[in-house]
Amino acid sequence: MSLYQAPLKDMQLLVGLAVAKAGLRDLPELAEFDDELIGAVLEEAGKFAQGELAPLNAVGDTQGCRFDNGKVTTPEGWKEAYQQFCEAGWMGLALPADFGGQSLPKFIAQPVNEMWLSANLAFVMFQALTQGGSEILLHFGTDEQKARYLEPLISGRWTIAMALTEPNAGSDLGALSTKAVPQGDGRYLIKGQKIFITYGEHDMAENIVHLVLARTPDAPAGSRGISLFAVPKIRIESDGSLGEANDISCTGIEHKTGLHGSPTCSISYGDNDACYGELIGEENKGLAAMFVLMNEARLSCGMQGVSIGEMGYQRAHEYAFERTQGSDFETGKQRVLIAHHPDVARMLLSMRSEVMGLRSLGYLIAALIDKADFTGDAHERRALHARVALLTPIFKAYATERGNLMAGTTIQVFGGMGFVEETGVAQLMRDARITTIYEGTTGIQARDLVFRKIQSDEGAAINALLNEIRTLAESLRSDSELAGLGQLLGDICTGVANAVAPIVNRDGANLLQLNAGAVPLLEALGTLCCAWQLAELAQVAQSRLSEGQDPDYHRNLMALAKFYFAHSVPNIAARLATFRQADAGIEQYRFDI
Amino acid sequence: MSLYQAPLKDMQLLVGLAVAKAGLRDLPELAEFDDELIGAVLEEAGKFAQGELAPLNAVGDTQGCRFDNGKVTTPEGWKEAYQQFCEAGWMGLALPADFGGQSLPKFIAQPVNEMWLSANLAFVMFQALTQGGSEILLHFGTDEQKARYLEPLISGRWTIAMALTEPNAGSDLGALSTKAVPQGDGRYLIKGQKIFITYGEHDMAENIVHLVLARTPDAPAGSRGISLFAVPKIRIESDGSLGEANDISCTGIEHKTGLHGSPTCSISYGDNDACYGELIGEENKGLAAMFVLMNEARLSCGMQGVSIGEMGYQRAHEYAFERTQGSDFETGKQRVLIAHHPDVARMLLSMRSEVMGLRSLGYLIAALIDKADFTGDAHERRALHARVALLTPIFKAYATERGNLMAGTTIQVFGGMGFVEETGVAQLMRDARITTIYEGTTGIQARDLVFRKIQSDEGAAINALLNEIRTLAESLRSDSELAGLGQLLGDICTGVANAVAPIVNRDGANLLQLNAGAVPLLEALGTLCCAWQLAELAQVAQSRLSEGQDPDYHRNLMALAKFYFAHSVPNIAARLATFRQADAGIEQYRFDI
Repeated sequence: MSLYQAPLKDMQLLVGLAVAKAGLRDLPELAEFDDELIGAVLEEAGKFAQGELAPLNAVGDTQGCRFDNGKVTTPEGWKEAYQQFCEAGWMGLALPADFGGQSLPKFIAQPVNEMWLSANLAFVMFQALTQGGSEILLHFGTDEQKARYLEPLISGRWTIAMALTEPNAGSDLGALSTKAVPQGDGRYLIKGQKIFITYGEHDMAENIVHLVLARTPDAPAGSRGISLFAVPKIRIESDGSLGEANDISCTGIEHKTGLHGSPTCSISYGDNDACYGELIGEENKGLAAMFVLMNEARLSCGMQGVSIGEMGYQRAHEYAFERTQGSDFETGKQRVLIAHHPDVARMLLSMRSEVMGLRSLGYLIAALIDKADFTGDAHERRALHARVALLTPIFKAYATERGNLMAGTTIQVFGGMGFVEETGVAQLMRDARITTIYEGTTGIQARDLVFRKIQSDEGAAINALLNEIRTLAESLRSDSELAGLGQLLGDICTGVANAVAPIVNRDGANLLQLNAGAVPLLEALGTLCCAWQLAELAQVAQSRLSEGQDPDYHRNLMALAKFYFAHSVPNIAARLATFRQADAGIEQYRFDI
Repeated sequence: MSLYQAPLKDMQLLVGLAVAKAGLRDLPELAEFDDELIGAVLEEAGKFAQGELAPLNAVGDTQGCRFDNGKVTTPEGWKEAYQQFCEAGWMGLALPADFGGQSLPKFIAQPVNEMWLSANLAFVMFQALTQGGSEILLHFGTDEQKARYLEPLISGRWTIAMALTEPNAGSDLGALSTKAVPQGDGRYLIKGQKIFITYGEHDMAENIVHLVLARTPDAPAGSRGISLFAVPKIRIESDGSLGEANDISCTGIEHKTGLHGSPTCSISYGDNDACYGELIGEENKGLAAMFVLMNEARLSCGMQGVSIGEMGYQRAHEYAFERTQGSDFETGKQRVLIAHHPDVARMLLSMRSEVMGLRSLGYLIAALIDKADFTGDAHERRALHARVALLTPIFKAYATERGNLMAGTTIQVFGGMGFVEETGVAQLMRDARITTIYEGTTGIQARDLVFRKIQSDEGAAINALLNEIRTLAESLRSDSELAGLGQLLGDICTGVANAVAPIVNRDGANLLQLNAGAVPLLEALGTLCCAWQLAELAQVAQSRLSEGQDPDYHRNLMALAKFYFAHSVPNIAARLATFRQADAGIEQYRFDI
């Protein structure tokens, strides 16, 4: 069995479209990042993902991490792969060249990230942490702090750990109780227990910089009293060299159903009252800083859904073209490949269409962030930020929910063999299961969508999105082949606009309904976003087809859109119907009897 | 944490309704099985499930089975629990008293079965095998064979193993190649390799009777040339005592993602050309015999979906009322129980409503089988068989698909803690994953539904079902409180009738569409069946409420129906829309580029 093939052709197509849609083609700052360079980077990353990371994926799952007396040992080969990853410069791909990075735009980093996540999700979790942690330092760190941390992080000599969760503070970070007491010399004494810290302790790097959320003595209660501290595992001397161990101890790692290769640590800070850290950004503004990383992490998390779906599709596709079973549904011919059974083809296309729609959305978001970074027009930047802010919870939650279902579909294609661990597809299901939970559960993303992304700007961002999709729908309608998709897409936009109106009109809003219906609404919008991306892709494919380019490939893209509109788009109306009456039965129900 | 509480109140209610609906109340043969007796049996079973089986569930998952040199050792406590199970008479609950069973009707055995499956699915898999295997022997065995096998099986001294699958014959049993050569003395020499044999080897009983599908030398190719043989692990002397070991060897057990406590064996028959078995039923009629067991197994499998959903609901409910996190959505009060978050309440009610709808369906099917067994009216018997035959694939596939989703929802309610194995809910997801595959995948159930259950009788059974649901819808419409549900239910029946018309009308049928749309159609019918059951339940609840009975409980049942009609029923129209255009994109798509 082949482990993973980087889908370079799909990637390059979708990166190109995202760049064009975001209006990045004409930016002189990005002129050097032409198709050729993009292709070269993707190809190199693909080789590394296939050749180095994918073979370690099952190793990580089987061996897991070992915890012994405060030390964590990563699986066989992890350490060497980490060295290679850093030496090849992948860690700093989208981080500033000033600190040793490569300053590539996000629209290239996103597909590269996708390959790491497909090839070995558990392994590569350190990378999003270093990326996000470095961005926090870039935004909120002093020049001295940037100088102290960034180069070692980007080179991979040190890694980042994010210490947020406490046993009683998970989704609700405002409830955390870790203390930080100023020592008058710029240092803070940190004391508290944190859990669920990815790569909080490991054996791959010289040092680990813990970014710890904690409260100073006079901090206000709740989320307005949280500050962010950099707390190194090994103390850093003024010349940047490493000194003595800080008072940090790893007290255990979780025994998880998936992601065995990624150590999830419980950490105790300041057991001996000698754990020192320094403040990053302003006091009591820790959550705002953390949101820089969180938004980054949510995008990466959404890509995990895509990556798991892609892996699942590849494995299922391969198996469906190897395994013979049953007879042909039309001719009755015996022992056909299972791919020829329409139900198996349906499962394969459901995965393929969702992966392409979600991937396209993920790449678009990355390109929009790049565009916002480079545009000089403040109005445009605001609109871009609003678009990204709207799409982020949809992408994070919907892609990971679908990723879970796609992992299940993969196992279903494998039949009984999928239930046997050696096949490797059960690992996809187990690994995927956390993606709808960490970095904000699906429920939290949905609340964010309804209240912060739709209600708080009175529907401006959602209406702008719907208008853009309507414009596409209009242009599809004039095409004989794609008119049906255009008609449907336009109708859905009307349905969505009607459904969200009560959110914006606060007076008429039924709070129970909006809260209970948030997830169904998010699912409707997630499906709409995929439909939008796939319809646009079909339009591009048709135009290229008319120029005679790569007919099989482009015909497939058109078929994919038609499949998605028949198999997934009908769910939008259903989810909107549920959203509108989501409080039904809930208020009356008494759980306590 | 509590492990499992048998939901006796719900069970007794739904058994009572199923008995009434199936018209079993007036049967003199069943007069002794009154509410009191039912209640007593359920209570005893509940105690055993909670007290003996549930505590071993995590043990089985953690330890798994051990394979060593042909021997399989079950997890700690398994053997003792098996002894107790048999001694208490649970094995033969629904098997004839003539052979040591208790001759209870299926409508009581079904909820009892549900409890075993909830408490410890991996453990109790032997029970459905003995039940189904015994029914094969009762139907197809000679008097001598019944005398030989049934008492030891029902007492639990021996167990049954079903040896169907071969590496190249899974869903397509017609492809199997195991040989059976007659020896002229009534014995057959068996030779072949079988895989995926549940409890094919274990240490809990004195002997294991393998029911092996094999081909005699002159058998026709395909599924018409398969015969069924009883092949004991230890040879049986003419006086019924055990003799020497037969030539059967277990070559390994699977390393599965779930059901660790249930050994899934590879077995080699006749390595030394000394594996003897005897024919059960007629030569070349093995598949027909196997279908007796298969129908039994499919019902049991559907109950697994219910059982997993019930377990998941109980665990999620308990956690949601222990865990505080976040603030109240209306008052802003800090640190509320997560059950008070509308999205968590939504998840809980989605599980609760599906479990109640599916459980009601499962109990109804059992009662209809009982009714068919007892009715003297051949016409009625045929109609009952047709109804059961129609509902079986829907129940098997839909309940297990929902069971998988409910296991995922349980983990989602637990958040990060759900991903940690010690919580025990990840096991639900892992165990559940095989249920949509074994005993016929969801795709196979859906084909069975479309072609054998709807098309082959020209829609008679489905139309009879729709008419019954329409009658309910009509009577709901005259009730002010439930009129909305009645209206919807009636509309759905019209939608389903329109959608299935092309199946019955063979001329107009598009084979690709029917095959690719079979699963979406099955999902639509599964949801309709739950809606039907829940609407009927709401009607009963309202009538009892008007009599002042248990108002909180009955109000909850009405709320549950309203919730389901808002949250799940809208999916029916979506799935039907997909069914109607299920070929879209599939024919055009080329996987080979």
